[in-house]
Amino acid sequence: MPKAIILINTEMGADEEVFENLKSMPEVKAVYMVYGLYDIVAIIESEDMNKLRDIVYKSLRSSPKVRSTLTMIVVKGHESR
Amino acid sequence: MPKAIILINTEMGADEEVFENLKSMPEVKAVYMVYGLYDIVAIIESEDMNKLRDIVYKSLRSSPKVRSTLTMIVVKGHESR
Amino acid sequence: MPKAIILINTEMGADEEVFENLKSMPEVKAVYMVYGLYDIVAIIESEDMNKLRDIVYKSLRSSPKVRSTLTMIVVKGHESR
Amino acid sequence: MPKAIILINTEMGADEEVFENLKSMPEVKAVYMVYGLYDIVAIIESEDMNKLRDIVYKSLRSSPKVRSTLTMIVVKGHESR
Amino acid sequence: MPKAIILINTEMGADEEVFENLKSMPEVKAVYMVYGLYDIVAIIESEDMNKLRDIVYKSLRSSPKVRSTLTMIVVKGHESR
Amino acid sequence: MPKAIILINTEMGADEEVFENLKSMPEVKAVYMVYGLYDIVAIIESEDMNKLRDIVYKSLRSSPKVRSTLTMIVVKGHESR
Amino acid sequence: MPKAIILINTEMGADEEVFENLKSMPEVKAVYMVYGLYDIVAIIESEDMNKLRDIVYKSLRSSPKVRSTLTMIVVKGHESR
Amino acid sequence: MPKAIILINTEMGADEEVFENLKSMPEVKAVYMVYGLYDIVAIIESEDMNKLRDIVYKSLRSSPKVRSTLTMIVVKGHESR
Repeated sequence: MPKAIILINTEMGADEEVFENLKSMPEVKAVYMVYGLYDIVAIIESEDMNKLRDIVYKSLRSSPKVRSTLTMIVVKGHESR
Repeated sequence: MPKAIILINTEMGADEEVFENLKSMPEVKAVYMVYGLYDIVAIIESEDMNKLRDIVYKSLRSSPKVRSTLTMIVVKGHESR
Repeated sequence: MPKAIILINTEMGADEEVFENLKSMPEVKAVYMVYGLYDIVAIIESEDMNKLRDIVYKSLRSSPKVRSTLTMIVVKGHESR
Repeated sequence: MPKAIILINTEMGADEEVFENLKSMPEVKAVYMVYGLYDIVAIIESEDMNKLRDIVYKSLRSSPKVRSTLTMIVVKGHESR
Repeated sequence: MPKAIILINTEMGADEEVFENLKSMPEVKAVYMVYGLYDIVAIIESEDMNKLRDIVYKSLRSSPKVRSTLTMIVVKGHESR
Repeated sequence: MPKAIILINTEMGADEEVFENLKSMPEVKAVYMVYGLYDIVAIIESEDMNKLRDIVYKSLRSSPKVRSTLTMIVVKGHESR
Repeated sequence: MPKAIILINTEMGADEEVFENLKSMPEVKAVYMVYGLYDIVAIIESEDMNKLRDIVYKSLRSSPKVRSTLTMIVVKGHESR
Repeated sequence: MPKAIILINTEMGADEEVFENLKSMPEVKAVYMVYGLYDIVAIIESEDMNKLRDIVYKSLRSSPKVRSTLTMIVVKGHESR
């Protein structure tokens, strides 16, 4: 299952709203509001690369509260939770 | 429990080695090798801010195979796993 | 007391206004207008991490004159003033 | 008195050493180790622009433990301490 | 024939539209939608530097759906297609 | 006489207009439209640091066609023209 | 067939050598030396994501003359050649 | 005559040396040591694009004291000196 980590910058003051939207998406396995160069980090997982594309382009990048996204495709991952 | 997301760039060719090191650290809850602006993304969790500091400075930033780290303290997180 | 240094870029021409706003906030220990990659540097101190969060998200990041903020949590500091 | 804020990235593992060096310099009014895009933030003040230049070039930028410096000349500042 | 590679960031949600526009331009030899720091990569070729300039400034940089462009003039190229 | 080099990004399509404005300012000793990470590079010279400040903040950074400016104070310069 | 665009920075003076190496790799469909933020842009195509991974990690990122790579997975592409 | 503006970062402590080297090159029309994101800004002019290439690759990018260069080809310039 393709996985991606997305570094998101939101419009000023829209952090909470974007965070809550992401929380409600089934493909979002984890989402974090952070201090630093980016505002939100999301980990998404989808059935195939096309579905991944739809999430990134249709859900994320078409939301007016999102200012920019940097999508990094996961090559290999390990979760100890 | 304070949590942080760390964006890591490794020395050329050291991706796998750094990835494996991180996998073995108990405070590392998840670690990913990724394509893109950064090489590895790690999610770490520790008892308190001092422990977090030790992990970042004593484990991560003193490894010769790590070229740079960008630490983002988590303000709020949600994991659906 | 948690402390943070915030690198701020303002909307064009809003430097003075944002600078004056920050000056008036009790948690702002120091604020500087600068030449360079960022427009304003602010040093803030708060009672706890939640208060710090409110300052960053409720005061700073919801001001329309602020274009972007980069928050860096202070690990250790020394002031000779 | 000209003032500058310097954003410093150190060689891996050299954070503490550079921090301590800066602490000992009289022209360094404040210095902070931070999490984030930069490793250390220093606020320096000198009698004139030439002295400022010497601090940046002769003290800071010739230290082998410093990887990069970004110097921002202060246009206007306010300290509430 | 001067050639340039242009790294494009589009307005949120405008990826497809900008991609299709570029596809229709004769000087665009190749165009790719990508995951990562940039949204679209275009390879353009023109008769001379002035024509190249018009493409960049009159076609690309005046489109409201384009947020930023980074133009890199090709020094030397090799295509095995 | 204090001198500064300013790296300017303009709003999309406003390159020529900003270039022409800068050309008309007496303190602008040279101005270039360029391909690359920045859109325009200007070299300005003024009687003192306050005048320099006015040019940067009152002329440049308050123009609606300018998206961002990165001001670098000149430490030492040499012109062979 | 998965495709990726890789933005490469080489060690100082190693541009030609890295360019020639890339030219000789069958999976490299096009490679360009460029002026600007990056030194070389390569377009690679492989049978599957694992092969893509090997090219990026085993060939590119283990070459001592390569300083950094930024890999962008192609979502959709069009070539008019 | 093609012209380029080059943003240079030097190895730590090598600012003066690189500055002096550049001053001695006939194609360098102006060179500045600066405070900020870059260390040195050079304006070079050559008879043709090939000569420009040699200056950038053979003189600049092969000097051990130069850490990175960002070359921006001039589209249009105006000098009031």
